[in-house]
Amino acid sequence: MYSVCVRDHMMIAHSFAGEMFGPAQRLHGATYVVDAEFRRRELDAHGIVVDIGLAGTALREVLAAMNYRNLDAEAGFAGRNTTTEFLARHIFDQLAARIRDGRLGASAAAVSSLRVTLHESHVACAAFEGELASG
Amino acid sequence: MYSVCVRDHMMIAHSFAGEMFGPAQRLHGATYVVDAEFRRRELDAHGIVVDIGLAGTALREVLAAMNYRNLDAEAGFAGRNTTTEFLARHIFDQLAARIRDGRLGASAAAVSSLRVTLHESHVACAAFEGELASG
Amino acid sequence: MYSVCVRDHMMIAHSFAGEMFGPAQRLHGATYVVDAEFRRRELDAHGIVVDIGLAGTALREVLAAMNYRNLDAEAGFAGRNTTTEFLARHIFDQLAARIRDGRLGASAAAVSSLRVTLHESHVACAAFEGELASG
Amino acid sequence: MYSVCVRDHMMIAHSFAGEMFGPAQRLHGATYVVDAEFRRRELDAHGIVVDIGLAGTALREVLAAMNYRNLDAEAGFAGRNTTTEFLARHIFDQLAARIRDGRLGASAAAVSSLRVTLHESHVACAAFEGELASG
Amino acid sequence: MYSVCVRDHMMIAHSFAGEMFGPAQRLHGATYVVDAEFRRRELDAHGIVVDIGLAGTALREVLAAMNYRNLDAEAGFAGRNTTTEFLARHIFDQLAARIRDGRLGASAAAVSSLRVTLHESHVACAAFEGELASG
Amino acid sequence: MYSVCVRDHMMIAHSFAGEMFGPAQRLHGATYVVDAEFRRRELDAHGIVVDIGLAGTALREVLAAMNYRNLDAEAGFAGRNTTTEFLARHIFDQLAARIRDGRLGASAAAVSSLRVTLHESHVACAAFEGELASG
Repeated sequence: MYSVCVRDHMMIAHSFAGEMFGPAQRLHGATYVVDAEFRRRELDAHGIVVDIGLAGTALREVLAAMNYRNLDAEAGFAGRNTTTEFLARHIFDQLAARIRDGRLGASAAAVSSLRVTLHESHVACAAFEGELASG
Repeated sequence: MYSVCVRDHMMIAHSFAGEMFGPAQRLHGATYVVDAEFRRRELDAHGIVVDIGLAGTALREVLAAMNYRNLDAEAGFAGRNTTTEFLARHIFDQLAARIRDGRLGASAAAVSSLRVTLHESHVACAAFEGELASG
Repeated sequence: MYSVCVRDHMMIAHSFAGEMFGPAQRLHGATYVVDAEFRRRELDAHGIVVDIGLAGTALREVLAAMNYRNLDAEAGFAGRNTTTEFLARHIFDQLAARIRDGRLGASAAAVSSLRVTLHESHVACAAFEGELASG
Repeated sequence: MYSVCVRDHMMIAHSFAGEMFGPAQRLHGATYVVDAEFRRRELDAHGIVVDIGLAGTALREVLAAMNYRNLDAEAGFAGRNTTTEFLARHIFDQLAARIRDGRLGASAAAVSSLRVTLHESHVACAAFEGELASG
Repeated sequence: MYSVCVRDHMMIAHSFAGEMFGPAQRLHGATYVVDAEFRRRELDAHGIVVDIGLAGTALREVLAAMNYRNLDAEAGFAGRNTTTEFLARHIFDQLAARIRDGRLGASAAAVSSLRVTLHESHVACAAFEGELASG
Repeated sequence: MYSVCVRDHMMIAHSFAGEMFGPAQRLHGATYVVDAEFRRRELDAHGIVVDIGLAGTALREVLAAMNYRNLDAEAGFAGRNTTTEFLARHIFDQLAARIRDGRLGASAAAVSSLRVTLHESHVACAAFEGELASG
């Protein structure tokens, strides 16, 4: 299995509902350094997994919709705890949609799985990975 | 598959038996920066994989039993080479036991697999990963 | 010159006033991974710059006062842009006060300068460094 | 599953054929920081996955054949785009051959899979992983 | 002293003249992860050292002139060894010129010194730092 | 001011005398990832600060004398706490001696200062820096 991974980041505010979150129930924030790993069984004719330029652009666009925002005020996240693992899945879904609709280029059609990892500090991260119907 | 990973470290002394270990047969030591990754298929009702506070506490407790010690003198490791990969398994087993007995909270009961990685320097690491009966 | 550096982090929300900040004028947030470096000319009788345990505790306490908070709502920061460089100075001042009042132990009395660095992402950081009257 | 990972690097020049590569069609270069992860189900009698000294030597030898070279001028890569993912596979194949012919020692015979990751910058990496017949 | 640091990278080919360079006399290449640190004594009225957006843009522009190129073929470097330390100085000079001509904004006029660090691998880096007439 | 920095590591055992060290009074150990930074005002005729190959060799030799050892049993450290900051100075002195006696080559004669940093974990490091008579 081959993979290519690109990195970008976003800086957001949010709060969590639930006593177990302790002080994180208060409005606070995070820098998420985000890794998106694209995987496929064989390379294409150019010797690549995916056009790394388009992959980076797609990741930047997905993060731009959240970057410098208070996620508590975003309609799309109403009633949800935007935990690191939840956001990993959200970004996964957004990237998967872009692969499906062709925005990552023809080579991306053979991407069979995807892993999105969010580093929230030097001591904690979360991820979501899954298969893609497209692969 | 979702995952959450927490990091901590320990500083130990030990030595290895076996000519293949060369100078590492002498008493020496290591800082192990330890990553514990918890995985499950779906998030719980709070949107989490595991209570990250409890996960961090569990990892700290497991490492505290070895931290600032000479592992050669620990009865539990008698006759064993406490290699990085061996210690990864040991920490895995200790965390798995804590998941089973409920010390990582109710949400951890759905954790299906675990990966423990020990970074021993900027150029070497070792890991153990496996399924959990609990998952 | 000797130095010892300890690392911790905090997760905060804030916003900036001023057109030049662009989208960062909106409420957003950041993880700050914070390095505090203590410097002195000679080691003390124990061979140390500062009690690293007390230094770590002091840093954790200073960050705890801001951690998981919206800095826009903190009275102490009213009317100020809590930029990364501003916060580096704020943490410097807090640590310097703890050195002066003895909370970092007797060995810290000889610390002559201090550098506080805040990493806000994998591509940006800011710092403040200065002399201490105590040194 | 146990794993051990060693790291080394190489510095090469190359260029890519294909409009999609944009400016990377020009002769340029890269530092590749390379991680080689060796995996097996059980530890051997010494408590190891593989002799880490031999693993490091093998990786160094494989990289030495490319290090400080213009890959465009290497006969073995004629007509190929030596992308990061292509090179990950090439290094995988070279390490797998060394495991098969015994150069990584007897313990390596039980290595069942291998992952080779090339970090080309602080924001991009690529990898190849696969099963080994030997495992 | 306050500082702000931004990071970017470039990927170049080159070779060195001089027996002491050994295999690096051959055409090879490097990824340089570049940190540019801007320093000044006091923050401006907005609480910043420099407009971090303009600083990042300036660094990107400076690197773009070398990125994806063979430095041996660049007229500006004719007869020079483009070592890591030489390039650190070159980038320093380019950024200093941009500060002088106002491209980093009014706040940059008070920047008194600059440090440019190039990381060429996980085990080596080089830097140039100096005072600015503008500060 | 120009600088070049090389990195290597060592793995040692030791213990500390003094109640303030708490559990670190027990025999334990550490991996020290060591950065040695060489500085000079101007580059030499080849465009370098120091022969990076010789610098790396010198650092490896200095660390080899301690690597895989119990520092408590080394005659040279008798009665001393081999703290991270103490070891930074020790390595500084060893490298400075090698510069003086010519083992780092002719270009090193102009090195005017040196900084040695030891990273003992992902959250702590210590350093010693000073001027060299040779510079």
